[in-house]
Formats: sequence, structure tokens, C-alpha cells
Amino acid sequence: MDLKAFLKEKGECINQALDRFLPAEDIIPHNLHQAMRYSVMAGGKRLRPVLMMAACEAAGGEAERVVPVACAMEMIHTYSLIHDDLPAMDDDDFRRGRPTCHKVFGEAMAVLAGDALLTEAFVLLSSPETARRLPHGTLRRIIHIIARKAGSFGMVGGQAVDIEAEGKAIDSPTLDYIHTHKTGALILASVQAGALAGGADEAVFAHLTRYGEAAGLAFQIADDILDVVGDEKLLGKKVGVDEARGKATYPALFGLMEAKRRAVELRDLALAALEPLPAAAEPLRQIACYIVDRTT
Amino acid sequence: MDLKAFLKEKGECINQALDRFLPAEDIIPHNLHQAMRYSVMAGGKRLRPVLMMAACEAAGGEAERVVPVACAMEMIHTYSLIHDDLPAMDDDDFRRGRPTCHKVFGEAMAVLAGDALLTEAFVLLSSPETARRLPHGTLRRIIHIIARKAGSFGMVGGQAVDIEAEGKAIDSPTLDYIHTHKTGALILASVQAGALAGGADEAVFAHLTRYGEAAGLAFQIADDILDVVGDEKLLGKKVGVDEARGKATYPALFGLMEAKRRAVELRDLALAALEPLPAAAEPLRQIACYIVDRTT
Repeated sequence: MDLKAFLKEKGECINQALDRFLPAEDIIPHNLHQAMRYSVMAGGKRLRPVLMMAACEAAGGEAERVVPVACAMEMIHTYSLIHDDLPAMDDDDFRRGRPTCHKVFGEAMAVLAGDALLTEAFVLLSSPETARRLPHGTLRRIIHIIARKAGSFGMVGGQAVDIEAEGKAIDSPTLDYIHTHKTGALILASVQAGALAGGADEAVFAHLTRYGEAAGLAFQIADDILDVVGDEKLLGKKVGVDEARGKATYPALFGLMEAKRRAVELRDLALAALEPLPAAAEPLRQIACYIVDRTT
Repeated sequence: MDLKAFLKEKGECINQALDRFLPAEDIIPHNLHQAMRYSVMAGGKRLRPVLMMAACEAAGGEAERVVPVACAMEMIHTYSLIHDDLPAMDDDDFRRGRPTCHKVFGEAMAVLAGDALLTEAFVLLSSPETARRLPHGTLRRIIHIIARKAGSFGMVGGQAVDIEAEGKAIDSPTLDYIHTHKTGALILASVQAGALAGGADEAVFAHLTRYGEAAGLAFQIADDILDVVGDEKLLGKKVGVDEARGKATYPALFGLMEAKRRAVELRDLALAALEPLPAAAEPLRQIACYIVDRTT
């Protein structure tokens, strides 16, 4: 299997679907819809949608079935970036290589664009089109998991603890909380949603959950490492900002070597979780390796 | 029927349910959960939940069935107030008679508390408890209507146009857009969600939709009027702020007399829409009168 081709194919599928699902810029309010599209179509890796499609296939389903859900997840991810970049939050001027949403559209419109994207995700999740692809009970469970993992017990909870920890000395459990919630939660939810859409039974769902937990945490540690050793041009954002800002990161707390060791350990945990699964889980295997190996 | 007693009874029912559905303050992250509760439990009129329960009864259902949906609606309404009060938006220091969320918890936490409340609304809407009370298809339609009316085609869309209009001379269609979207959309969604939960057929749904449209617009015009003639102590917020801020309002564009005439006209439209409905629609009738008559 060629991971690069897989990522490209699924990524393009998601980009086309996002273009179709996002409100058009010529619909009122123009500025709001422009701001939403500006941030979503800025060209991220679409990691969460791709993971969801791969998990759906690993569970025995067709990836196509989960495309609207995957687009909703990318909208939620993008809203979180827009709000995270606000002056009151991380105050970032650049994201994915271009000016952040509030830099282009102003702070008020950036708050609203984030709000609208989060809301639009649930418009899409509950739409007739999505409902035609998934059984009613499955769809409700998927909406519930995504909402829970995006809210105060998931991503937003992680952001809240992260902001309070800024500039303070924090302990290992707090760092783990931030990592598993701020980034890990949506990655886990993506894998779980894909699993449910693919028709996973309880055992397969449990395996994929273990995979999603390990891969999500590995991704955040890798992200922390890249902020120390990464190439600004390749990443499309400034490096070294975590340290300058006194952010709680794995390398800051345990050192770079230990962070890399932990990332590799989590990758292996993720791979072990996939062992009982059939060959259709191969993309998930390779994504776990890709997440960690780009840091070395 | 005693409207005051009705509002009190339903309002208390909603307050108890909100207390049960909102994350407890002793769960991490404490500050985030405190901020969410601070704003939700500040004691609003619970107009949207009460309208939803009344619409459910008018359509022949038991109001109890729609309580979780009504609580979700109040969470969405509260998130919109928190974000609306932010310095980048309306920059308000007081709301419902006490300091606004960002004044107490800081701007970053207020952004996150709003995000978390919006998300928690969909956690609740898709929860097993809500699903036990409503048929699957009905619940999906309700989620879809609420999300759509809360997003860029509804409330957030209205806020975006409102912010862009600030300080500019605007025309009557733009003002109508702002009013029907910014406030009207959630009021209409509340009535429609109640109608569906109550088992409304197409005809009843159409009647209640006409009621919700008229009542929603009447409410916003009444709110504009109260900002000119209202009593700060009774309202729990400053008056005269719309004019000071150059906000687009009905009295500003057409004068106070015409605004009052239009509010009465909309009340009568709302009442006419209820005429085909049985006696169970009496609370809806009285609420429409209450909305408008408090301005005179």
C-alpha cells in the first residue's frame, strides 16, 4: 500500500465534499461564509477525516459512507483552530502558512466563523443526506461521541486546562490531561465514528478505540517535538512558540529524548491494537507510523 | 389560564433540568464548568424553553418529553449571549444584572465557555436520555432544525450582518434580516422543535411555524423598544445602548410609534396563526401577548 497516494486520494475526496457542504460565499452573509471557507479550505492534512475513513474501512465498511461525518469533523477541527488563534487565546498571526482568520476578517467575524463552523458540523451530521448513509441509531451514537469529545469533557476541556497552565510549572498528569483532551479527543472520536459507521462490533470497536487513544496522544507529542526540531517552511507555522509562551509540552517536561521514546512507544501500542484486525487496517497502521516517524 | 403561574412552573422545571444536565463544577476543568454554569444559571426568563414546551402541548404532546431539547436550546441561547458580550463583539460588562462571563472568568475562558455550551447542547440532544423520549426520525429532524437555525443561515448569520451594519445607515430589508435571524431564528426553532416533539402533522407544523415567525420578530422589536423606554432595574441591563452604539433597530429606523404598531401587528398575526389549534394552544396565545404588551 502506498500511504502517500492513499492520503492524497482521501484528502481530495474530503476537499471536494467540504466544498460542496460549506455554504457558498455568494450566499448572505458573504463575509461570514468567506471567513468559514478561508479557514477550512486553507489546506490542512485532513488527518482526522482520513483517519475516520480508514477506520471505517478497517471495520469492514465503505469509506464513502462516512464522508459527511468526516467533513463535519474537519469543520469542528477548523473552528477550534480559529478560536485558538484569537488574540484572547494563543494570539497567532499565521496558520497553515497564511494569515489567521481574525487577521483577515477581524476578531468579531473570526469568533462568529468559528461558532458557525461548529454549528454547521451538526447541521451536516443531522442532515437527510447523512441520515441516508447510516442507520438511525448509529448516526445518533456518532453525533453523541463527536459532541462529547469536542466539548468540555474533550477538546474544549483540554484547551481550558492548557490556558490555565500557561507559564506555570505543571505536573505529568496535567500534561497528560491536556494532551489526551486538546488533541487526542477529536482523533479518538474520528476513529470511533469511523468504526461505528463501518459496522464494528464491540470487540473491533474496543481495538480501534485503543488505536485511537494511542495515535491521538502520539500525534500531540509528535507535534510538540516538531515545535522544537521542525522546519518552519514545511510546517507552515512558526516553531519554538511553545517554549517562548511557556506552554506545557512533553519535551519541556521530560526532554526531547524521552518525548521521542514515548512517541515511538505509543506508535507501537497503536500498532499492537490493530493486530487482531484484517488487512483492511493497513492504512491505519501506516498512518500511525507516519505520525511518529516524521519527527525523527 | 394563569400565565405567570405557567411561566413559573415551566421555568422551574427547566432550571432543575439544566442543573442536572450541566457538567458539575467539581469536575475538571473546574473553571470552565463554573463559567458555563455562571452564565446559564444567571436566571433568564427561559422564554425559548417555555415556548418549546408550550408548542409541544399545543401539538398534542406532553411537555415533559421535550425538556432535554429545551435545555439544549437554552444552552445555545446562553452561549450566544456570552460570545455576543465579548470585547471583540458588543463589549458588554453586565448581563441579567450581573457581570458578564468574560468580566468574571477572563476573555479566553468566556470564549471556551461559549464553545463548550454550544457543544454540550448537541451532547444533550444526541444523548440516550433524549433518544428515549423521542422517535429516532423526529429527533434527527429536531437536531437539524436547531443546528440550522443556530448557524450561519440563522442566529450567527444575523449576528454577522448586525456587526457589519453597526454605525452604518441600513435599509429596511437588512434590518428585517438581522431581526429574523439574530433573535427570531432560535425562537422559531424552539416552536418548531416543540411542534415536532408533540407529534404535529404538516398542517399544525405550518400553523406553529407562522406563529413562531411572528412571535420571534415581535420579540426582537419589543426588545428594541424596551432599550428605548424600558426600566434598567426591571431589565437587569443598561438601556439606551443600541442608540449609543449606532445599532440597527426598529425604533431607530421607523420611530417608536411605528415600532409599537408593528409589534402589535405581529402579535395579532401570531394569534391568528393559532386560531385553528385546540385549547392547548392557550399558553402560546398568552405568551405572544406578554411579549408585546410589556412594551406598552
